[in-house]
Amino acid sequence: MSLLMVGTMAFDAIETPFGKTDKIIGGSCTYIALSAAYFADKPNLVAVVGEDFPSEDIKMFQRKGINTEGLQIKQGEKSFFWSGKYHNDLNTRDTLATELNVLADFDPVIPDAYQDCEYLMLGNLTPSVQITALKRLKKRPKLVVLDTMNFWMTDTFLPDLKEVLQMVDVLSINDEEARLLSGEYSIVKAARKIQRMGPKVLIIKKGEHGALLFGEKQVFFAPALPLEDVFDPTGAGDTFAGGFIGHLASSGDISFENMKRGIIYGSAMASFCVEKFGAERLINLTAEDVEQRVQEFIDLVQFEIDIL
Amino acid sequence: MSLLMVGTMAFDAIETPFGKTDKIIGGSCTYIALSAAYFADKPNLVAVVGEDFPSEDIKMFQRKGINTEGLQIKQGEKSFFWSGKYHNDLNTRDTLATELNVLADFDPVIPDAYQDCEYLMLGNLTPSVQITALKRLKKRPKLVVLDTMNFWMTDTFLPDLKEVLQMVDVLSINDEEARLLSGEYSIVKAARKIQRMGPKVLIIKKGEHGALLFGEKQVFFAPALPLEDVFDPTGAGDTFAGGFIGHLASSGDISFENMKRGIIYGSAMASFCVEKFGAERLINLTAEDVEQRVQEFIDLVQFEIDIL
Repeated sequence: MSLLMVGTMAFDAIETPFGKTDKIIGGSCTYIALSAAYFADKPNLVAVVGEDFPSEDIKMFQRKGINTEGLQIKQGEKSFFWSGKYHNDLNTRDTLATELNVLADFDPVIPDAYQDCEYLMLGNLTPSVQITALKRLKKRPKLVVLDTMNFWMTDTFLPDLKEVLQMVDVLSINDEEARLLSGEYSIVKAARKIQRMGPKVLIIKKGEHGALLFGEKQVFFAPALPLEDVFDPTGAGDTFAGGFIGHLASSGDISFENMKRGIIYGSAMASFCVEKFGAERLINLTAEDVEQRVQEFIDLVQFEIDIL
Repeated sequence: MSLLMVGTMAFDAIETPFGKTDKIIGGSCTYIALSAAYFADKPNLVAVVGEDFPSEDIKMFQRKGINTEGLQIKQGEKSFFWSGKYHNDLNTRDTLATELNVLADFDPVIPDAYQDCEYLMLGNLTPSVQITALKRLKKRPKLVVLDTMNFWMTDTFLPDLKEVLQMVDVLSINDEEARLLSGEYSIVKAARKIQRMGPKVLIIKKGEHGALLFGEKQVFFAPALPLEDVFDPTGAGDTFAGGFIGHLASSGDISFENMKRGIIYGSAMASFCVEKFGAERLINLTAEDVEQRVQEFIDLVQFEIDIL
């Protein structure tokens, strides 16, 4: 089942209480692709980078089966750059620098070979670019999942965000973003309000407190794995989304029951992501690592009660 | 299996964003007893009140099968009174008034008929009084569960708290208290450190984010039910503890597997508690209400994945 992922590929410079990095590769599509590639067969990627983006990293993507035909490499230009510093609790961060560079006029060209797309993951990106990408698919995919962030919920971008919300099946955001978008403090009320904006299914990520999946009537909750240390949360949400849609695309099943499994796979992948800086931990995982982590989730929440 | 509960019975005046109450009944033992009585047969209570405590409420306890022989009623004195106001997020609160009254010199006398105690719940109370109660049991109970709070983690009371921690099997506290007691920010590190202080089993309550149960090696997580509105969180932690030990006492099984079920029953009871002011919602539950709520927990977290 063909999976297409659209998002950013970038350099990040990250500072956490545990250390700091020079420029390392990041961006929503980097995390989504590295995570989804553990599940989906030959996922297709659309993104833009400058000539400074390391060719060895692009080759690493290709070795993982990721199709980079849709990756635009702009000669003479620089890749998107973001720099941030996390506070001690790792739940909040300050943005130190944002240099759009090639992202400023990103035109998401879809290669012809990608037109068989059945599963579309719109990673965090300018909402108008997400809309353009979706409109360029000749056939509406079976499932469209959108990730976004608080930055696009301000006056300038909100009309576009609302437009794209009406075009997607699943939205993935965090709890603070859900509150901001809905104006409701109660997560349950926020979810119902956001579902009326378009997406029938809503994922609300709560970081170390797990994630909620709201269907039309059902609700499912998956915890985060209790980790001794969260080293660097950058990309955890994108990694989660990549595991989620990667599992759905690989199984070809978009039932609520299977989305629950997607949430567990996404949570497992995110739990790896935060163990090291950037995407480092995602690059060298084995299938056994992933299955073992999923077993830890099962052990964590499994109980048996006989209801009378 | 005989269950003994020691704690406070009090008047509370509560203000939340949704309204305020005059003096209503509260206190750790009130919530523990009302919750445990849905599971355990004729639980025994030790607490102290003044002559102002409503006799109709004591009769209500008795109608629920709670043995009040150990309830001291001090003529000419007033019951413990607490008043608090919750902030808008309901996760933090200010104490507006604390009048110890009869609690100032509470001597936890254990009636002879209570000496068959196999399950002891030491509800939130001065640690030295918890120690006295435990020492007055001629035979060490099969299981001792302790609940406490941040107030006892300051210099004055910490030595007593550390002493009682060495005497108990299970400790139930919230995440902020776990951080304060251990000096560790990571909940997993905090848990391991607190377990070395005495209790082999540790419950860390995270309010709307659920609860973690740490065994000697195992970890179990139960979510809180996603509620549209939390009306008043007062007593939720005590209600949780009452459901937990009530289930253990009723089943006579202190295995980790059965403690998981206890956590689910405790979470179900707590989810009722927060729906109305004070203990109001706990008073008129039916067994069917409880079983139905437990089924909602099962539906919320249940998933099936075939691990290769």
